[in-house]
Amino acid sequence: MIAGVLVTPLREIETPGGNVFHAMKATDAGYRGFGEAYFSTLQPGKIKPWKRHNRMTLNLVVHIGMIRFVLYDGRVDSPSHKEFTEIVLGNPGNYARLTVPPGIWLAFQGVSEQISWLLNVADLPHDPGEADRLSLDEIPYYWSER
Amino acid sequence: MIAGVLVTPLREIETPGGNVFHAMKATDAGYRGFGEAYFSTLQPGKIKPWKRHNRMTLNLVVHIGMIRFVLYDGRVDSPSHKEFTEIVLGNPGNYARLTVPPGIWLAFQGVSEQISWLLNVADLPHDPGEADRLSLDEIPYYWSER
Repeated sequence: MIAGVLVTPLREIETPGGNVFHAMKATDAGYRGFGEAYFSTLQPGKIKPWKRHNRMTLNLVVHIGMIRFVLYDGRVDSPSHKEFTEIVLGNPGNYARLTVPPGIWLAFQGVSEQISWLLNVADLPHDPGEADRLSLDEIPYYWSER
Repeated sequence: MIAGVLVTPLREIETPGGNVFHAMKATDAGYRGFGEAYFSTLQPGKIKPWKRHNRMTLNLVVHIGMIRFVLYDGRVDSPSHKEFTEIVLGNPGNYARLTVPPGIWLAFQGVSEQISWLLNVADLPHDPGEADRLSLDEIPYYWSER
């Protein structure tokens, strides 16, 4: 696992009429403050290409569908520099929160047959100036179709 | 509208592979701090009965399905004391955030044919001691089947 990346299992609480699913508490591991919460959706098989946040910590929760995340450590001073980590999160299946500190390249793919939904509880509001982007082939990785 | 309750339209941003949906920024109207973000699901037609938070401000976002919210102002010092407000939020349809300050009774019903998903960005972490509950018939309101 890339240094500083956390995977935190999340609880589902059975409730009459519809269950409750934890996402993030201010006291949880990986919480760095609140700037913005937003959703991303992902069509089956589609890949969102490489993006690196230079200041933002991401806290990612896949509450519907399933997503393959691939992380590449671009931090030159990191013990896991140039390492990859792949993790698949989804609900039902592997309901957990993925914490990604700044400086790590992230790309992700929808791997369920339905649309996937991803919540990001970020410590900063959206600021296009703090993120870098690369096309998918600029960091070589084997992506299967699904 | 009950005093202090806000309905804030939210943006959907078209993005290749899957769109982005805003939920809450720290600079948005209705933001009172971050304690916890969690999801509630709601089966079609089901009603979650009356609950009043005495300290928590709720920021509610229905990103999938459709939910009818009924609010009853239980604050004796409020200009809208004993008033009801009904609002239906959903996506697609009426994608918006509902801000509910403390002291207001809230019950809600799933009104889409699919399961509905609700995100609450709350200013306090879950604390059963700060909320009161009543059964559905203790605050009379006409609930249609759907």
